[in-house]
Amino acid sequence: MKYFTCAADAEDVNALIKEALQIKNQPLSNAHLGMGKTLGLIFLNPSLRTRFSTQVAAQNLGMQVITMNIEKEGWTLEFKDGSVMDGNASEHIKDAAGAMSQYCDILGIRCFPGLKNKEDDYEEKILSQFLKYCTVPVISLESATRHPLQSLADVMTIAEHRGSKRPKVVLTWAPHIKPLPQAVANSFSEWMSFTDAEFVIAHPEGYELAVSFCGKATLCYNQEEALEGADFVYVKNWSSFHDYGKMPAVRGNWLLNPEKMKRTADAHWMHCLPVRRNLEMPDFCIDHPKSLIQKQAFNRIFSAQVVLEKLLLHKMKAYGREANSFTCHE
Amino acid sequence: MKYFTCAADAEDVNALIKEALQIKNQPLSNAHLGMGKTLGLIFLNPSLRTRFSTQVAAQNLGMQVITMNIEKEGWTLEFKDGSVMDGNASEHIKDAAGAMSQYCDILGIRCFPGLKNKEDDYEEKILSQFLKYCTVPVISLESATRHPLQSLADVMTIAEHRGSKRPKVVLTWAPHIKPLPQAVANSFSEWMSFTDAEFVIAHPEGYELAVSFCGKATLCYNQEEALEGADFVYVKNWSSFHDYGKMPAVRGNWLLNPEKMKRTADAHWMHCLPVRRNLEMPDFCIDHPKSLIQKQAFNRIFSAQVVLEKLLLHKMKAYGREANSFTCHE
Amino acid sequence: MKYFTCAADAEDVNALIKEALQIKNQPLSNAHLGMGKTLGLIFLNPSLRTRFSTQVAAQNLGMQVITMNIEKEGWTLEFKDGSVMDGNASEHIKDAAGAMSQYCDILGIRCFPGLKNKEDDYEEKILSQFLKYCTVPVISLESATRHPLQSLADVMTIAEHRGSKRPKVVLTWAPHIKPLPQAVANSFSEWMSFTDAEFVIAHPEGYELAVSFCGKATLCYNQEEALEGADFVYVKNWSSFHDYGKMPAVRGNWLLNPEKMKRTADAHWMHCLPVRRNLEMPDFCIDHPKSLIQKQAFNRIFSAQVVLEKLLLHKMKAYGREANSFTCHE
Repeated sequence: MKYFTCAADAEDVNALIKEALQIKNQPLSNAHLGMGKTLGLIFLNPSLRTRFSTQVAAQNLGMQVITMNIEKEGWTLEFKDGSVMDGNASEHIKDAAGAMSQYCDILGIRCFPGLKNKEDDYEEKILSQFLKYCTVPVISLESATRHPLQSLADVMTIAEHRGSKRPKVVLTWAPHIKPLPQAVANSFSEWMSFTDAEFVIAHPEGYELAVSFCGKATLCYNQEEALEGADFVYVKNWSSFHDYGKMPAVRGNWLLNPEKMKRTADAHWMHCLPVRRNLEMPDFCIDHPKSLIQKQAFNRIFSAQVVLEKLLLHKMKAYGREANSFTCHE
Repeated sequence: MKYFTCAADAEDVNALIKEALQIKNQPLSNAHLGMGKTLGLIFLNPSLRTRFSTQVAAQNLGMQVITMNIEKEGWTLEFKDGSVMDGNASEHIKDAAGAMSQYCDILGIRCFPGLKNKEDDYEEKILSQFLKYCTVPVISLESATRHPLQSLADVMTIAEHRGSKRPKVVLTWAPHIKPLPQAVANSFSEWMSFTDAEFVIAHPEGYELAVSFCGKATLCYNQEEALEGADFVYVKNWSSFHDYGKMPAVRGNWLLNPEKMKRTADAHWMHCLPVRRNLEMPDFCIDHPKSLIQKQAFNRIFSAQVVLEKLLLHKMKAYGREANSFTCHE
Repeated sequence: MKYFTCAADAEDVNALIKEALQIKNQPLSNAHLGMGKTLGLIFLNPSLRTRFSTQVAAQNLGMQVITMNIEKEGWTLEFKDGSVMDGNASEHIKDAAGAMSQYCDILGIRCFPGLKNKEDDYEEKILSQFLKYCTVPVISLESATRHPLQSLADVMTIAEHRGSKRPKVVLTWAPHIKPLPQAVANSFSEWMSFTDAEFVIAHPEGYELAVSFCGKATLCYNQEEALEGADFVYVKNWSSFHDYGKMPAVRGNWLLNPEKMKRTADAHWMHCLPVRRNLEMPDFCIDHPKSLIQKQAFNRIFSAQVVLEKLLLHKMKAYGREANSFTCHE
């Protein structure tokens, strides 16, 4: 693994899940792998779980961590190549990425979509410029279209709680008061395509995800029908992909309730957090004995840790074994 | 000690002071106690001494520290149970506390009062929700009604500088331009009640503290009378408790001056900082040879460190000796 | 070295450059020198390279780092002695510096000029108050009039790339859309005066630097003439020193172009970053094969590290060898 931005970067998704679960059993078994190495965490957007869990993962490997809210503690970045920088931006991503790559051994980047311009977002205008100009491995801490560390934690959690039977997994849209990215839904769909499961996505008309992400899923405009016999239900809001970033009117009430929940096969309930309680998902569902929500959050440590381990090992192979030596980036 | 929010959590206040002073003599004697453990410092409000001193204390114990300005680097939290979250708040304290408890071994929380709603503040609406939902030990880094790490540092400082005689300690109100919490005054009064001293609180009419905090103190509306023969004088502003959060008109000038200072028994001068010089306390008092103000600030390291040590030891006892093993929170 | 704010603090500039380049070859050769020591990085202004490189330097020495955006995560500071603090400022530098000096072994301070009041800025109103009131060594992370860690990295980079011939080094003014400090230009001129080189400063009329900084340089109002035969060209904007903080109208176009570049002796191109591409410096110059810009950024680690090493060693000599013992600041 050279960088980590989506399921395809993972060579073998199921092997990665297995390794992540092994790390969970012995999180300090590689406590010196990252000695003398520095992880830079660059936030263009807010974060809670990502900020904490990735730091803990790095510390479990003996890495140092430098965290920066780059546009608040630094300045606005320019992402367009060739532009005459006479606007708000004080530094071009090319120069910032170049410098940070000399200070850190691995860089993690969080960059949400603007939800204004579909092309910019779906071409990953920001993340792709980081990938282009960083000279060290890059980890996506959630980008415009995907949230891969979350999705890996999600499929790990399903792997831990599925029985021997092939499960039915439902991703259901939920209400919200403001337009949210499609990243979590896209990414979960992408990772689910590597999982042996019946995978159904339920959402109101107008909320179809991009086919490139959900192509292998069964789509359903009827939430109750979708929930029928479900073993895992992942609840999440997203804004429209087609009427990009908008919130087309929705028929019916998509908030879960006890009656709907009874249609499932005593399902496990999932959400990536943060969740707006009783707007997006009711208390009794979040706090249900079969809720996996806090377990998903806990697995964020190990999805980050397995990725960091892979990237550290790749670097060592590339440069010769030098776990404890300083890597000159020049 | 399971958590630390007030003097009552300290089992034996005087023993705790003694232990803190022993740690001050040998701050690195337990440099491995916190190895592999992470302290999360959650700030809902600004801080300087708390931020630095608690980090240094944790580092003296070998702990890792993750600091987060939660509502600036993350998002607004909801503290009311059962609410429909269709407002500003993006995440409920229940979910955030659950996740952070899985990432950290101890959590410190700073949450000031709103000074709008006395009940909310005096029921510790925010801190109590952290205590309710965190599954790891919680340290108050100043809450709506108390500032226990400051108070412990304050009584440590008095213990270091008192002679054999039972001292007279005066807490005197001081002027300010905006309404401040009662937390420092409440908390100092609470901790003083465990100290063998004559304890007097002086303030203008209308600035009476809650009886639950100052019940054992002698109250006095005359600053000059209160200062008579004082050995320690703690200077601090607070807003009205009864006319909650307001600043009722004050008769006379409560700013200290050389004449007033001469009434004391060559007193030590104290303040928790930050102090507005020459508004709240004059330069010559802050910088007086008998000022203890910087010594109080220094003792903040050791009040934090003794509390961290107690909480780490409690956890180890609870889970079996595992100082260097990873604690799975599930 | 007791503190580090300008070239004069460096005893022997050329020896310091040599030592910094030795550290660059073996950055982890003193990995335990700073064990148990804490570096506090205090930012009154934004930063990217300084924030990262100084942390990496400290970590290479085994130091702990506490970073604080003091006026954002804390509160506004008062810098004037004797003032009645009834305005915005919540804490006086005297008290804040006193406390931070008790929590940290070395303090780094970033404080830009206001560009409103020349006297305040050129007397280093802010930095000088930190120096006055901190009781531990202070490092300037860029102040009103100088950027010494940048300049040290700059002269290191020139030392690495000069041949045996005495080079011609040109500092040329460049366009910008807003008034910038003179700090980088002042500081580079100051450090160049210790270097064996022909040093020319080119800028439009009205942009003369203070004579105390550029006294030994040849001044030139004609950019093309200045570039003739140059071996190193440092490009940087600054606002007027004489019409303080203003941007007097400029005759001609001071943006570099291929024709102008050809006048040099195949020069190396330099900039301290951040740079506004195609406004201040064209892409083809920043990205030129002979650009040293990313090398300057990389050397920031080692300019910081050599200074930290010197200050740690000075402290140890002053207090007796105690690399791993806690320094009580009282």
